[in-house]
Parts: sequence; C-alpha cells; structure tokens
Amino acid sequence: MTNEFDLIARYFSRPAPAAYLGVGDDCALMPPAPGMELAASTDLLIEGRHFFSNAEPRALGHKALAVNLSDLAAMGARPVACLLGLSLPELRPDWLEAFADGYYALADAAGCPLVGGDTTRSPSCIVISVTVLGHVPVGQALRRDAAREGDDIWVSGTLGAADIALRLLAGELPPDPQLLAATRAALERPEPPLELGAALAGVAHAALDISDGLLQDLGHILKASACGAQLDYASLPVAEALAGLPQALQRQAVLGGGDVYQLCFTAAAARRDEILALARRCGSRVSRIGCITAGPGALQVLDEGGRPIAPLPAGFDHFN
Amino acid sequence: MTNEFDLIARYFSRPAPAAYLGVGDDCALMPPAPGMELAASTDLLIEGRHFFSNAEPRALGHKALAVNLSDLAAMGARPVACLLGLSLPELRPDWLEAFADGYYALADAAGCPLVGGDTTRSPSCIVISVTVLGHVPVGQALRRDAAREGDDIWVSGTLGAADIALRLLAGELPPDPQLLAATRAALERPEPPLELGAALAGVAHAALDISDGLLQDLGHILKASACGAQLDYASLPVAEALAGLPQALQRQAVLGGGDVYQLCFTAAAARRDEILALARRCGSRVSRIGCITAGPGALQVLDEGGRPIAPLPAGFDHFN
Repeated sequence: MTNEFDLIARYFSRPAPAAYLGVGDDCALMPPAPGMELAASTDLLIEGRHFFSNAEPRALGHKALAVNLSDLAAMGARPVACLLGLSLPELRPDWLEAFADGYYALADAAGCPLVGGDTTRSPSCIVISVTVLGHVPVGQALRRDAAREGDDIWVSGTLGAADIALRLLAGELPPDPQLLAATRAALERPEPPLELGAALAGVAHAALDISDGLLQDLGHILKASACGAQLDYASLPVAEALAGLPQALQRQAVLGGGDVYQLCFTAAAARRDEILALARRCGSRVSRIGCITAGPGALQVLDEGGRPIAPLPAGFDHFN
Repeated sequence: MTNEFDLIARYFSRPAPAAYLGVGDDCALMPPAPGMELAASTDLLIEGRHFFSNAEPRALGHKALAVNLSDLAAMGARPVACLLGLSLPELRPDWLEAFADGYYALADAAGCPLVGGDTTRSPSCIVISVTVLGHVPVGQALRRDAAREGDDIWVSGTLGAADIALRLLAGELPPDPQLLAATRAALERPEPPLELGAALAGVAHAALDISDGLLQDLGHILKASACGAQLDYASLPVAEALAGLPQALQRQAVLGGGDVYQLCFTAAAARRDEILALARRCGSRVSRIGCITAGPGALQVLDEGGRPIAPLPAGFDHFN
C-alpha cells in the first residue's frame, strides 16, 4: 500500500553507480574491493539537539552527510556509499527537496552514492540517521591508538569559527550579523578534507576529526595511545573571523569549540615535508601545532611566551 | 568531557572479533572479503510509531536487530557486522541493560558483531537506528527483480501470528490473554531465517522479507520482475494460533499482516527437492504457495475451491 511516506522515498532514489544495487531492494549491494578494509560509521542527528528547528534544509542535508564523511576522512578511508534514515513529523515537499539537494550535492562531490535508506513518519521531531561506508588499504587506517612519542601534531583547516557561529545562533553572544556571516558556513556547511584523509593513510600515525573540540578530541588520541602532548597556541590556525574577539573567547572557541570536521593527526617528524606536499596537492591547509610527549594523559598548551595556559578552557583540565 | 550520555555507550562497547576494529574510533574497520559483494541495510525505529512506549526493552533490543538481519536474509547475505544509533529522552540503566542484553544475544547468535554506533539524548521519543552489513558471493544475491514466469513461490515460517498480536495489543481485537500468549513472540521476538537465506543464494531467484505483509511484499517482486502470481490459499502456512478465528480475520492476517520477518522467495520448479532439503538442513519450515505467472502485476489468490478470493483484504486490490 503506497502511502504518503513511501512518496518521501522518491526524493532519495536517484540511481546508484552501475556496479552497485541501490535503493529499492532489501539491501544495497556493493562490489568487492580486494586489499581494502571496510570502514563504517553511523551518526544520529536529532532536531533540537544537533540542529535548530529552523535550520535551512539544504545546509542540513549537506551537514548530515558531511559529519559522517568526516569520520571516513579521519580514518584515511575513501567513501564507497552511504545510507540515510529520515523520520519527519510532517510532509513538506519544499523542505524535502532542499534537504535532498543538499545531501546529493555533497554525495556527488564526495563520490559517496546514496544506496539505501528508510523514511518514516516521526511523532515529534526530525530524526536523521546517516551511515557511511569507505575503503582504506589493509593496515593503513589512521587509528586513535597509533600516536608515538616524538610525533608532530597537525590540524587541517582553521579552528574556532563554528563555535562562534553556534554561540551567536544560540544567543550566547550578542547579535553580530557581520561576525555571523563570517563564521556561519563553518558551522552549517563543513567541508571535511576527504582527499587529505585518504592521502594520509599509510603516512600519518593517529588521526581523528575535531567534532567535539581540539583538546577533547586530542585527549582521545592521548588516552588510546597512552601518551601526552604539548601544543603551541601561537601555531594554531585561528579562523580569521575571530581576530577582533576577546582573548578568552578566542581560546575557548579554538581549544574547546566542536563541530569543526577537520582533522587532528600525528606523524613522524621525518615526514614533515611529505605531509606539506600532499596537503598542497589535496588543496588542504595543514598546521603543525605541537608534539606528542611521553607522559600519559599530560596535555599542555603553551602561550606565546612559552608558559602553560592555566586553567585551560572550562572542562579540559581533567586531561592533565 | 565525559557526560552522562557517553556512559550509555559503555553498554554497547563489548569487544568486536579480533579481525575487526570495533566501537571507539572514528570508524569501525572490517577485513576484506574477496569474491563477496557487500550488502547493507538501515532501519529507523521510532517510539510510538514502530513500537509501543512500554515495549519490554530486552525484546526491543532483539527486534531492532532482527528486522535488519531479516533484510540480509532476504538478500541471501551472511551477517558481517552491525552499527547502532540510540537516542533516549532519559537515562534508565535498567532499561539500557535489558535493551543491550536483548540486542547482543541476537548479535551473538547471528554472528553479527556490533562494531560502531552513536548514543545521544533525544528531546522526546526513543529513536533506534540499526545498520547491518553482510556478504553474499558475487552474482548470487536474491534480488526482487529476478523472478521468472513458471517459478514456484515459497514462504518460510508461518503467517498471521504477528498481525493478530499487534491487533490485540492495539485494542483492535477484544482482550484474549490466551491468544496473545500464543502470538506475541511472533511480533516481539522474530527470528529471521538467516541460515536459510544464505543457503538460498545462488539457488532461488527473487526473495524479500514479509515485513509489510505477504501480498504487499510479493507485489514488490511482481513489479520489479514484471510478472504476475497465483497463490493457493490452502497451501499458505497459517500460524496454528489462528485456528479458531473468523475466516475474514484469518485471511486479513495471513495475506495482509506485516511484521513477519520470514522470506517470500521464488525458484525454478526443477529445484523443489533441493529447496526442501536445504530448508531441512537449516531448520526452517518452507511452504510452496503458488507460482509466478506472465501477466505483469496480476495477483490472484485461489480459495480452497479454486475460485479467486475477491475482494482481497483491504488495500491489496490495486495489484490486480
């Protein structure tokens, strides 16, 4: 019995590549990939929790996929396919079309075809579930437990803009249309560095995406790898839009702000030139921000004068 | 920053098999499988829509995975791994523990380790998202578009019990504790025929699971394969518990009732003995219920006297 919610599915049934079996059967099918490990990640995005109810649907479609692609990049994996679960309290064709457009535009750009999904009515809020699948050559994945003492610590992109946009939209900062205009894309249309991530497989050691904030996420590497870290604040790639803001707010946004969807990774010092060259090839900015130390769990951030910043932004002192 | 919802994740971080990288990194990793196509399916289950708010959490954990494993069985794929997204309005450790127990018990039995996931707070209802991954030998998947004129039509298991249980629980039928006791397990603890599904790969033609009801689901095969079907009602495996019910209710439950999570499949008549033998080996009951005909979209169900049942249960006449 075709019902209105089967109709939703029509927005998400563009054909998959010829080698795949896409939307419409019990499962999607993808061809074998000899020598490749399969990487998989899933995320739930809930209205009112992960995005505002009035979020622009095209940007939301983009971001729902982007945050998952970011997990593939952080593993050094290239995208293979994605699956989308979507539950909506009401049918709004204009909303659906814009969401699907944003989603497909990124899926096409990333080479990550939508091959399966599920659409249902939700009794209350919008629920988006995305699962991404990717390939990484056997043994080359960028795992959190692979950092080594003496490794350089790098980040891609810039830091802080998404956090400022979030604070502006949440009313935590006084309205500032110019600042919002300069930071909003970082929050709403993140562009995970997929080429860079794949190029780092087999070159870098540990990596993850900065979805929860630099210090918190770097803390995951330190814990999994049983080592410490020292960062130089002056070397951090602060987003330009933050230039005029008070120092404490800048530091909070740069060190603690999440939703970045760029990579933090570690690599042997001997590979510096190689990493700079491959980042250039991939069109990604990378910055060397510190080094991995022996002390398990110890995390220091030195200010411009070489003195440890203390206390670190709220909530991060427990890594010390 | 560890928060209460990170603690939820601890209920779902049992170790994955040694060849896998499980929960705890940006992605899960699984080893290559030469000669195998990758099958993937995802489902969203929303409180108040797919399950009652007072659903027993152990049974819910079981069912959330079972309905997805059923999609793998219907493709002829063997389970490889699963990912779980869980969003809850409140933290109830007893609920979580029972849900996780039910989920893991089936995951273990099915050889489908949980390798990744996402847990978050939901502003309102419980949301469960499950993605399953499986392998099927290249070219042997059981696709909906593979039925051929003259094929036998088979179903596994029995039909109708889940629908009766659902009607009892929803108050559509007068309370009948004995009938509920006899039908409830079919609704709440479905056991998808994984061994049978995998054994049918390369033997059967088309297959799907009967999640939406026999006629509706068979209709998907007929549409995808551009053919018709004739069923003999007398050959349908009606669940024993339905024996005393009025004929019209029985027919509605058997032909239209969903939530069955058994297979409907087609195969060449020459393979009857082989199919009966492999079903016996797999411990599955299979029944031959009709045949595929030429007429695209035509779907007839003959009664015990060989006359077409008309009208078919509400909502199914549009296949004719």
